[in-house]
Amino acid sequence: MSEIDVVVQEVGPRDGLQNVERTMPTDAKMEWIGAVCEAGVPQVQVGSFVPPRLIPQLADTGEIVRRTREGWPDVALSVLIPNLKGAELALPTGPDQVAFVLSASAAHNERNVRRPVDESLADFARIVALRNELDPGRRVKVSGGIATAFGCTMQGAVPEAEVLRLAETLAEAGADRIGIADTVGYANPGQVRRVFTDVRAAIGPDIALGAHFHDTRGLGLANVLAALEAGVRQFDGGMGGLGGCPYAPGATGNIVTEDLVFMLESMGLRTGIDLERLVAARRIMEAHLPGEPTHGTFVKAGAPKGFVPASRAA
Amino acid sequence: MSEIDVVVQEVGPRDGLQNVERTMPTDAKMEWIGAVCEAGVPQVQVGSFVPPRLIPQLADTGEIVRRTREGWPDVALSVLIPNLKGAELALPTGPDQVAFVLSASAAHNERNVRRPVDESLADFARIVALRNELDPGRRVKVSGGIATAFGCTMQGAVPEAEVLRLAETLAEAGADRIGIADTVGYANPGQVRRVFTDVRAAIGPDIALGAHFHDTRGLGLANVLAALEAGVRQFDGGMGGLGGCPYAPGATGNIVTEDLVFMLESMGLRTGIDLERLVAARRIMEAHLPGEPTHGTFVKAGAPKGFVPASRAA
Repeated sequence: MSEIDVVVQEVGPRDGLQNVERTMPTDAKMEWIGAVCEAGVPQVQVGSFVPPRLIPQLADTGEIVRRTREGWPDVALSVLIPNLKGAELALPTGPDQVAFVLSASAAHNERNVRRPVDESLADFARIVALRNELDPGRRVKVSGGIATAFGCTMQGAVPEAEVLRLAETLAEAGADRIGIADTVGYANPGQVRRVFTDVRAAIGPDIALGAHFHDTRGLGLANVLAALEAGVRQFDGGMGGLGGCPYAPGATGNIVTEDLVFMLESMGLRTGIDLERLVAARRIMEAHLPGEPTHGTFVKAGAPKGFVPASRAA
Repeated sequence: MSEIDVVVQEVGPRDGLQNVERTMPTDAKMEWIGAVCEAGVPQVQVGSFVPPRLIPQLADTGEIVRRTREGWPDVALSVLIPNLKGAELALPTGPDQVAFVLSASAAHNERNVRRPVDESLADFARIVALRNELDPGRRVKVSGGIATAFGCTMQGAVPEAEVLRLAETLAEAGADRIGIADTVGYANPGQVRRVFTDVRAAIGPDIALGAHFHDTRGLGLANVLAALEAGVRQFDGGMGGLGGCPYAPGATGNIVTEDLVFMLESMGLRTGIDLERLVAARRIMEAHLPGEPTHGTFVKAGAPKGFVPASRAA
């Protein structure tokens, strides 16, 4: 495999599918995830350990982790966990990363995980301790994620100082990685540059830093550019922009992985991902979700004439 | 009117309508353009002086200029001209700007205006001379535009050195403004930053510099951000992303004005444009083009909760 400049994580099987009403059968998911792995995507978030009564679409996450691990041992697998209980369920299945998420908006945290933000922070410390106990070599990485970091549909603006405080606390608690998410598509590039620059300064150079953007208001890739300039080298994308928002018909969900990869590769940044195979994987996803709205421009317009992706350049 | 940090020019009545098959009646255009002016858009490209047999949709440009001038005397009006003949027709109608365009791709220039690039350059000098003769006070500005500056569907890659040579030649010939266009949506942010930085260095600080992006591959607003960082403060947008490409169904045309304005305003850059009124103008355009595909995210998702546009901040 060629060297990689930027890590693109495909989160469609988690963030996309949890926002799609129907449940994709396990074998269909495996066909899709397998194609994603074959396209060279280095990391996939394959599901979450949230009670199945809340998100039935992801009830098969344990099996998905095991089957993906077996078929594509070199691809890093992430699973989302909302709390310690999630970590207890997730760790024995053998992922490479458990991705804990809390919200910078108190109102959103209350609704999403039913507890105050500081209780989530306390839980994070327990999750790190559990990982250290079960996995003393710390092969499994613990990511501390901050959702609604750029604004919240309930609370409105979110103070940048609160995001900074949460990032510092997660880092001190032992996070291997900090993820910062624009859960509802409120971020603008100026804000993105400030937040990531300040967070990097606060947590030091050794903890990985990832960005998760939604494209609800069309600024997703501009926000990626701003984050790149602030030194971020890990980005989440969702194939086809699956998910969207139930309150904004036609609005996209995650930034579209194919468009993200096209932008990075056209800028000379190697992702290790083959765009044609990525589009093939998208076709598989679409075939398993007939009628579901999908988004993205690369899939319609194709590559520019004579385009050479950075990952294929000499 | 509040001060403006960035000039957004609405080009939908020219670049959008010339790519829509049907012809919008003059009164309908006036209703749309009037609403655009009422939204605070400081400059509108209302049409072109191209032979009506080639672009029948814009045959009424002279009348549009006169009626818009009469109704909204403070809004700057631009018209596109492909050659000296266009300038001869355009100047007597009283626009504020005549926007000449040639292509950096020789193949595209041959197809678009049926002559070699150097003949277009020679024509530009004659256009400046004509303006100087008819308008010694130089109230009407002459813009020299470089199309396909980031790549061409016929030629593929376009050398950055050629774009630089063209910009320098247009500047030496007396351009008041240089416009650089990604006519087919090939540009990436790295390229955009290089080209605009180099062009600015080559033409000096006194000539205005404008950017025109298409969103064919989803990178339009990221390219705007890169151009902003290179010091560009004039951007074209097309309401609803009208136009697209006949060979890429569903692909957008110009970057969507509403999304562009939302990005700028959310970054603290004043455009002087009222987003709600801009959306109202879009509704008028859509009502006059029933069934025509339009694009954009702001119109679907609306403003973030508590959003205060820069133009409305104290």
